[in-house]
Formats: sequence, structure tokens, C-alpha cells
Amino acid sequence: MTQPRSMMKIGINMVQNGGHSSGWRHLDADPDIANDFEGYARIIKMAEDAKIHFVFLADGAAVRIPHSNAEELSYHGHIDRFEPLTLLAALAAITSKIGLICTASTTYNEPYTLARKYASLDHISHGRAGWNLVTGWSEDESLNFNRDTLMEHAQRYARANEFVDVVTGLWDSFDDDAFIANKASGQYFRPEGMHVLNHQGEFYKVRGPLNLRRSPQGHPVIAQAGSSVPGRDLGARVADIIYTGQKDLQLAQEFFADMKARVAAAGRDPSQVLVMPGLMPIIGATEAEAQARMAELKSLVHPEVGMQLISKTFGDLSHLDPEDPVPLPLPESNGVKSARDQWERRLREKPMTVRQVYEEISLSSGHCVVCGTVETIADHMQRWFESGACDGWNLMAPYFPSGAEDFITKLIPELKRRGIFHREYEGETLRANLGLNPVPDLKNKSNDGRSKSDDRISMSN
Amino acid sequence: MTQPRSMMKIGINMVQNGGHSSGWRHLDADPDIANDFEGYARIIKMAEDAKIHFVFLADGAAVRIPHSNAEELSYHGHIDRFEPLTLLAALAAITSKIGLICTASTTYNEPYTLARKYASLDHISHGRAGWNLVTGWSEDESLNFNRDTLMEHAQRYARANEFVDVVTGLWDSFDDDAFIANKASGQYFRPEGMHVLNHQGEFYKVRGPLNLRRSPQGHPVIAQAGSSVPGRDLGARVADIIYTGQKDLQLAQEFFADMKARVAAAGRDPSQVLVMPGLMPIIGATEAEAQARMAELKSLVHPEVGMQLISKTFGDLSHLDPEDPVPLPLPESNGVKSARDQWERRLREKPMTVRQVYEEISLSSGHCVVCGTVETIADHMQRWFESGACDGWNLMAPYFPSGAEDFITKLIPELKRRGIFHREYEGETLRANLGLNPVPDLKNKSNDGRSKSDDRISMSN
Repeated sequence: MTQPRSMMKIGINMVQNGGHSSGWRHLDADPDIANDFEGYARIIKMAEDAKIHFVFLADGAAVRIPHSNAEELSYHGHIDRFEPLTLLAALAAITSKIGLICTASTTYNEPYTLARKYASLDHISHGRAGWNLVTGWSEDESLNFNRDTLMEHAQRYARANEFVDVVTGLWDSFDDDAFIANKASGQYFRPEGMHVLNHQGEFYKVRGPLNLRRSPQGHPVIAQAGSSVPGRDLGARVADIIYTGQKDLQLAQEFFADMKARVAAAGRDPSQVLVMPGLMPIIGATEAEAQARMAELKSLVHPEVGMQLISKTFGDLSHLDPEDPVPLPLPESNGVKSARDQWERRLREKPMTVRQVYEEISLSSGHCVVCGTVETIADHMQRWFESGACDGWNLMAPYFPSGAEDFITKLIPELKRRGIFHREYEGETLRANLGLNPVPDLKNKSNDGRSKSDDRISMSN
Repeated sequence: MTQPRSMMKIGINMVQNGGHSSGWRHLDADPDIANDFEGYARIIKMAEDAKIHFVFLADGAAVRIPHSNAEELSYHGHIDRFEPLTLLAALAAITSKIGLICTASTTYNEPYTLARKYASLDHISHGRAGWNLVTGWSEDESLNFNRDTLMEHAQRYARANEFVDVVTGLWDSFDDDAFIANKASGQYFRPEGMHVLNHQGEFYKVRGPLNLRRSPQGHPVIAQAGSSVPGRDLGARVADIIYTGQKDLQLAQEFFADMKARVAAAGRDPSQVLVMPGLMPIIGATEAEAQARMAELKSLVHPEVGMQLISKTFGDLSHLDPEDPVPLPLPESNGVKSARDQWERRLREKPMTVRQVYEEISLSSGHCVVCGTVETIADHMQRWFESGACDGWNLMAPYFPSGAEDFITKLIPELKRRGIFHREYEGETLRANLGLNPVPDLKNKSNDGRSKSDDRISMSN
């Protein structure tokens, strides 16, 4: 890494109804928040007041829960959610500093449409947009998009690689200063400032230009969440943020080092790609109170929900009793390979029962859960950050709104006191606040892909 | 029509940079408004204060101007625009009553994605969303979506018919009262309240359900703008609003009568489908001032722009002098058939020069322009409304912001004085404000497709 790095970056991961599968059943939870724009808005404004870098919205274009009938499905609190770009655009209008990142799949979208939407969000928010690029692991999504099965993993990533190049190419359709709107001459833009993409690849044929001037960030921030080898390579090549699920410090350090090496191998500056795992803090005034809260959350998991949730990674285990050990080896998966591989490694070291596994998955969708006081949770975050395991965190609340209020009003101030979280937004755009260099337009991009003014920009960061 | 109809409905058609192709060059125009969210927001709030029923955003997923090089294109002020669903979601957060309608094409979108986005906008806006369904007439769009040519007209409409059924089917995935979030039992929704679409048609295979509860309007309002026979039949079958370009009273009356007859033939109540042509008022304190303003606008049309704009309907006429008459017959078109046919009829009656035609097309994209004082423009609107030519209007401003401020602050008050425009929004949703019946969920829909409570609902309107 070429730049000093003393402050962690933090996003708030707004899983609808909370990151815990059954958090909506908690006494303090508002079980209708998935459908309450004003409820979302209050939390995001609170996060902005706390200087959290961005809100992060995951997404899927389906009810992504394996089930055989409506009765089974009806116990899941993660059925309904707003389409996230629509939600972020609405949030853009009532916030001014916080970044706005959400997921869209390269498998079920068209690059021209996606490029327009994120560029429009970037304009409307004055430079705060980000795209979390996914390829989609869910069979259920396929069935909503004219397919009978999930597209094969390698094929999904081959398409994703081409897709993202089309999107960034379209974002560069015009130079930053192309639009002049000269009333006297009648010329609306400088012709030499337009760049028609004329893309013809293996999967996409897109002429361009984008029908939108270049947005404030040029390229909205790109996050990427695939942790398989093709996923890591794609992230290393194009992403600004790597979103990942990591529960073990050593594995997280390995992942972090591997990602930074891949970024360097791709000819990019490793400090310019931020590794930000998910983390769900469960906060108590004492350790005992926090442990009790976690036990309470686990007790809320309906067995119907637990058994179905684990099938995503473990296949159908419904023939087993919850107290049976999970049988190894795990079945091969066409979905999220990285989660499957991590679980296989863990279970070989320490077997677990079906119930133990589903209680953990139910807790945080496979992300790290840290249970304790504000001090011990801050200790954990600081230790990981300072020992090369991450550049920051995507914080998840087990339920809303109080689960988020807890970490915004208690944990974030502790991180500020320790001097490892910023007290003010540094700039006007999400890139500036994350310490990421601007992306020069084509006119200002030198042949090696670096900005002609990179040196000046780096010095000012 | 079965209901009394005393009030016209009015939308504000926010063509980026104004409805006049070169309005951005006007002394009073803000030439950067296409890129200015706050500028849009000010106009929409002003329109809401005036009780305008909805904002209407047209769209295209391309720079839809035929050209052979960047220099030719650079004189066009309609190059860049925000993606409209993104813009409407942002506007939803800062308004509370005005409807939010925008265009999306059935040719370049997936029905599942589109259903989610409009349903999300309907939730976030508390029942104010509308979808203007188009099939896309532009060759340029095709080239951005993996195609070499524009899909053939009949094929586009065959797909559109199936597409809209998938979308409305997905909107009915859950009954209005399906979500119960019962913390004690752990049941999040009533299983019998979920309806899985399982659509398998000629063009689409979509399982469902939508991953979103039913939205406040159930079905967001559907507008439809195709005036060809397949377009009219599609509109008669599924639309709530028919958007059309009409310049001649008699032709407009014929269109109106034809549409209402088609609606009745489709088994629907003709009063529940609103025919709303576009109209661009050019307002002066006197007739002479208004005429001078129109002449000024015409003088702003750069010949490069004029010659290119007419090629959409008239084919390439660049070999002609602007003072030559337009040669007949017009070439066959795969694009907007209705515009071509109307022009052919007009030119057979009264020949025009190339310049005369392009100045008119440049003025309003083929919509009716009424030039005069507030009184004479209101006379025109009232005459059309009361003589069975329309149910209301989509008002276009020649340029922004003052072109819109003019009709919001001068024309709308005159219509209120005459008692032909409402002084307050009637209800909470766009449907209610337009006098359209609610769309019952599947549980409350009787076998003939009418609400079980239609009689009660009709009485209360």
C-alpha cells in the first residue's frame, strides 16, 4: 500500500428487516420497516449525522428462499423489499453527504440501462452513487428471467467482465467539459468531447453514447462481492470496494493479502481498493447482556426458516434432525462457492449440528457477528483493521430500527474517540470521502490508464 | 361514458430542456436544466402547489437523433436526460400529492424488473406511480441493446401485450392484507395471500412471486402512447391514460371516439380510460406578443437540427433545399406509424415546404401548439374538452423554467376560475385524483374481472 491508512471506512448495510433472519420478531423491532420509506429515511439520516460513509443495499430479483410451498415460505421475514435503486434515488433527495451503494446483477440487466441508472443517481446525488456488481447465485432469480436453471458460474463471470467494461465505457461517453450549451452558436456540446463506444464483444453489442452527460464521479464507485477466484479477479480488475463475508481473523488476513496482491497484479494501486467485510454487532451494556440478546435472537429462529436457509449452501438437509451433525463433504454448488468452501473447512476442523449451523447462518447471512460491549466490539474492529484484515466494515443491524440506532449512537462514537473513524466527511463525493482518486475522463486519461494529474491528486488526499 | 365528467385532468410533460427542440437557446431558458435535479424539483413542487395531477416523463434509451457524425448531433439540445424512474423516485421523496408517471419500454426491459421498480415507486410515493408503456420506435435504441435493427412493429406489440400481463400479474403476487408480521407465531405473511404467477407465454417465462408486497394502488397507473391500431387496442385493453399527439379538433374527436369505443369493446368502462393529448401553450399578454414569441422560437431552430428532426417521420430529405415542398408519398416507416399517417393526410390537403414542416416538428415533437393569451388558450382547451376531443392534457413547456412557470401561474388559475380544473387533490393516490377506480387484489376480484365492490366504489367517486 502506498498511502498511510489510519481511518477505517464504514458503511451501513440495510438488509430489509435487519440482518438477522428472524430479527423482525424481536420485541424492539418494527416488523413493517421493509415497507416503510420514512423508517428507512430516518435511519439513513441518523447514519449521515454520524458520518457513516455509505448506505449499502443488497438485492435479489426474486424471493430467494428455497421452498416447496407457501406455508414454508410464510415464516420468512425477508420476503419483500424495495427495488434498491428506486429506494436510493428517493434517499438521495433527502440526504447530502452519505454515499448510496446498491446491488444490481450483470446476469439479469442490460448494461446500457444499468449505466444510465447509476449515472443518473450519481447526478441527482451530486456524486454519491455506487454499484455493487453481482452475478446472482440464486436459482430463483433465473426462473423470473426466462431461464430454467441458474447460468453456470464461469459463464456468469465471463459475462460480468464484459458487462462492466461496457458500463464504464458508457460512463465515459462524454468528456467532463463537453456540454457548453452555447445559445449564440446553437452548439449544445463540443463534438470532440463525445466518444461513441461501439462495443462488440462475445455477449454484448452496444453502440452508445450514453444519453447522459458524464456524472460528478465520472465512474460511480464499484463494489464487488464475489469471493471465488473469478470473483476476486474481477474485483481486483474493476472494483473500488470488495464486500466479503469473513468470520475468522486469519482467513480474513489471507483474503485481504490475496486481494491486495491481485489488485497490484492487475496494475492498480492496492490502497485504492477497499476490503470491507460485513459485521453484525450485537451490543449490550455488559457482556452478559449482549450474550443474552444473542441467545434471544437465536431462539426466534423458526425451525422452518432454519432448515430452509441452510439449504442454499448445504443442499437439502430436511431428512435430518436438527440435532444431527452436518454430513461431509458438502455437495458441490453452482451458487456462492466461497461460502460453501469456508463452511467445509470449518466443519472439517469442528463438526456442528444442523441446528448450530442454521442458527449461525440465520444470525447474519454468513457474516461475522460480534457480541459484546461497545468496547469489546470496537476492540475487535480495531484489531482486524490494524492487523491487515480489512479497510473497514459494512455494519449490519440484527433488526430495525433500534439495532441500527445502537451502533450509530454507541459504537461509532467509540471509534471516533479512538481516532480510527473520521469526524467529518472529507469531500463532496463518495470517492473523495473514501479516499479514492477521481476517475479522469477520456481526454485526461493517459495511455497507461492513469490520470494525467494522478500525482497532484494523490498529494491532496 | 357512465360518469359525469366536468373537470379536465392535467399533467406536466417534463421534456428535458423543454418541448421545443431549440427552446434551450431562448433568452429566458436555463440551458443546463436537463442536468439540474434541484431545477426539476422546483418546477414539480410548483406544479403540485397548482394541483396538477401528475408529472409525465417521456424517455428513450439512446440518443434518438439520426445523424452521421458528432458535429451534426452537437446542435441538438435533447442529448442528455436523467433516467426517469431514478428521477421520479427522487422527486417522490420531496412531494406528497402529485402523480409520478414515466416511460419504460417493453422491448428493452424485463417484466420482473419493471414490475418491481414501479411497485417500489408506488410504495415510496404512497400510491402516486404510473408507467407509460411504449414499445420504442427508435432504431438508435436497438443498437444499444444487442440488436442490428429495430424490432418489427407487429412483433413489438405482440411482446408488449404479453409483457404487460406479466407485469400486472406480478403486481398481484400478494393480497393487500397478506402481510401480518405476527411476532408470536413467527408467520410473516398469510400463505393463502400469495399468488405465484407461473407465467409461460410466447415471449416470457416468469415464475414470480414479486419480492414486494402489493403497492398502495395495487396496479400503478398505466399510460399508453401508441396510436397505431395495435397500439390503440393495447391501450384499450390495459391503459388508464392514453397519451397522444393531436393537432386537429376533428381528428382528435375521431381518435377520442375510436378509443372510447375500443375500451367498451374490450369490456371496460370508457370513463375509466382518460384520453390526454400533449399541448404546448405559448402564452403572451396579447395575441401579438404570443405570436412574436412563437416566431422567435422558430428562428432558434438551427437548420442542422431541423433537417435531422424530420427524418424520423419523413426519411432522409437532406438532398432537398429547406424551401422545397415535401415530396409525397412519404416513405413507409417501421417507427411511429400514426405520426407518418397524420402528416401524409395533412400534406395531401395542403403542401408545405421542408422548412415549414421542420419548424413545426421542432416546436413540439408533433404535439399541438396553441399560441395566444391565457384566455384564448383556455378557450381552446375548454372547447376540445367539452366537444369530446379529450379528457385533459399533457402540458409541455417550450423551455424551462419560465415556460412552465407561465402555464402553472397563469393558465391553470384561469382553468380553475372557469370551473373546469380542480382546486384540490381529491384523494391520496394518483388513481383517486384521476377519478379511476381502485384495482382489487385477486382475493377481491370477481370472475368477470370487476371488483366485488365496484358499485360502492363508483358511487363514492
